[in-house]
Amino acid sequence: MLERLYERRRRSLAKIMESEDLDLFLLSESADILYFTSFSGALKAFISKNGELTVYVSPVNLEEARRKLNEGEIKLVRRSEDLNREIATFILESKAKTVGFKGLKAADYLDLKESIGTSELKPKSDLVWRLRSVKDSYEIRAIKEASKLTSIGMEAAMNYIKPGVREYEIAAELEYAMRRNGADGTAFETIVASGERTALPHGGCTERRIRLGDLIMIDVGARYRNYCIDITRTFVVGTPTERQKELFQVVKLAQEHALKVLRAGIAAYKPDEEARSVLKRSGLEEKFVHGLGHGVGLEIHEPPLLKPGNKSPLRKGNVVTVEPGVYIPGLGGVRIEDTVQILELGTEKLTSFPIDFTV
Amino acid sequence: MLERLYERRRRSLAKIMESEDLDLFLLSESADILYFTSFSGALKAFISKNGELTVYVSPVNLEEARRKLNEGEIKLVRRSEDLNREIATFILESKAKTVGFKGLKAADYLDLKESIGTSELKPKSDLVWRLRSVKDSYEIRAIKEASKLTSIGMEAAMNYIKPGVREYEIAAELEYAMRRNGADGTAFETIVASGERTALPHGGCTERRIRLGDLIMIDVGARYRNYCIDITRTFVVGTPTERQKELFQVVKLAQEHALKVLRAGIAAYKPDEEARSVLKRSGLEEKFVHGLGHGVGLEIHEPPLLKPGNKSPLRKGNVVTVEPGVYIPGLGGVRIEDTVQILELGTEKLTSFPIDFTV
Repeated sequence: MLERLYERRRRSLAKIMESEDLDLFLLSESADILYFTSFSGALKAFISKNGELTVYVSPVNLEEARRKLNEGEIKLVRRSEDLNREIATFILESKAKTVGFKGLKAADYLDLKESIGTSELKPKSDLVWRLRSVKDSYEIRAIKEASKLTSIGMEAAMNYIKPGVREYEIAAELEYAMRRNGADGTAFETIVASGERTALPHGGCTERRIRLGDLIMIDVGARYRNYCIDITRTFVVGTPTERQKELFQVVKLAQEHALKVLRAGIAAYKPDEEARSVLKRSGLEEKFVHGLGHGVGLEIHEPPLLKPGNKSPLRKGNVVTVEPGVYIPGLGGVRIEDTVQILELGTEKLTSFPIDFTV
Repeated sequence: MLERLYERRRRSLAKIMESEDLDLFLLSESADILYFTSFSGALKAFISKNGELTVYVSPVNLEEARRKLNEGEIKLVRRSEDLNREIATFILESKAKTVGFKGLKAADYLDLKESIGTSELKPKSDLVWRLRSVKDSYEIRAIKEASKLTSIGMEAAMNYIKPGVREYEIAAELEYAMRRNGADGTAFETIVASGERTALPHGGCTERRIRLGDLIMIDVGARYRNYCIDITRTFVVGTPTERQKELFQVVKLAQEHALKVLRAGIAAYKPDEEARSVLKRSGLEEKFVHGLGHGVGLEIHEPPLLKPGNKSPLRKGNVVTVEPGVYIPGLGGVRIEDTVQILELGTEKLTSFPIDFTV
């Protein structure tokens, strides 16, 4: 059944390729190769306009490729061989006029161009994203499992946090709980920022010790069967100040308003605009220094981007983060982030950890 | 003092650029940007032939860029602006005839080419690697610290392993010990392969439970201050069979022979050839399905590659892995890997965990 899944994905790409007059599609990045083949360890993969698969594998991954790939041709690239020469030969021999690609490096593009005659290489990553951005039920299940593991991690962090412990120690407890329960690792570098450091949206972890009254921002996600999830919670250790409470309430309200408009069919900038207008009413619009959200899947940052100017319509099956935040240098920041699946008439939250402001 | 370090690196690149007739160098990948600026969160960076720095930053990282960058011009790229347009304008305004680049995507190359007039973009990643592959004392200190943390992790794994525990649980204990002691995370996805799965060089972790007599292969590295380390140990739970002992002894001997010839000045294929000839005498040459080693630094796989055909001379300050291995489908595999620093007359081992065959 899973084999059919990958075959179906390749057929879907082949169909789009036909309408775009592409004879071949060249994949270079492991997430793309995994998505269309089930095996991430290949160096490159071609999908033909008939949906046929050819993967290039070095000797070190040959045994694994043989075990995982039930279809397609495996081409071994020995250490003495030049991968670009092999790729160029394939393009020439298949008499492809136009080859779409995603993720190709400019240096490889220039090298290939020299030796493929009149065949043309065209950047076409949007075709792959058209498929990858709409998640199927297999993907949603993996993301939900990643979410459960992340909640277990957040719970462990909450139980551990008290004045005196260090940021990176909190991250250690959190990641350990996820891993012990079956996570493959983290979807991105965990952020545990505290105190004034919460004013940095991407603050990482340091040796700083938590103090009573600190804002703490935890941004984390487990990886499960190659799928990511993304959640942020911000809270205060002890009793929040009035200003802290105010920031928290307005960010929470911004998220609620964004979620209210989010559904299939609307333009991707709309929910961002909603959140921004809530923050504007509190004079905090300028402190919201990033877009409202991004797609999540095999990679932690994928299309669609929920940001100003993006007029593309959102689609049923998109999985996106909704993460308004405000950051005030010298004081601190608050971000609340959930990952949701977009439905015909609204959303389903895939993250489930409570949004409380004190620990 | 650290500021001078980054300034010095930029001046070194500028010097090489001069000899290659480059007016500008465009960096796109975070490891490169970090290496030359101290700040990995920029979108792009230019280094001029005078060593001057210009970094492009989105609003989300502006505050952090201001705190970390003491030199260079910070250009803010708003959500409504097109990064490639900004980059093209800079190239045109600086009247650069030739712009070297590393890590640029083909799609961006094609987009930029349209709007930079007669300026030329040239792939020149080798110039950056010429610098990055020779580690300075600051880098060696960070790698040594990563190594210490990795030994703590390996120790924790050894104490935990017994029949019945699962592969991913061993990884959890190992990673937790590294993280609790100050690691920033892992340098790559930890491998804990057991039983027949050790025949897969990149076997990851599964739910498989350890059994008495199993081969176990652990390949792991901590990250510390952005630097990686890489170590593999293979051992048997309980009493090894004669065949297991034989595989272990020959791989250990192959590593010893490779280390004996490894020093500055020799061609990069030499130590690989040494290891391969030891394995050949035992009829295991065909089972050594990868190169002997790779550079390690800000990234886990860097030049120089110790592999057949690489005639480039190794240099003092290169940090490389030495990791012969044999993999026999149906039976299992053995790999022994250390990371070493190349010196004038030999090597210094940067990894220090004992090479024992039983736990």
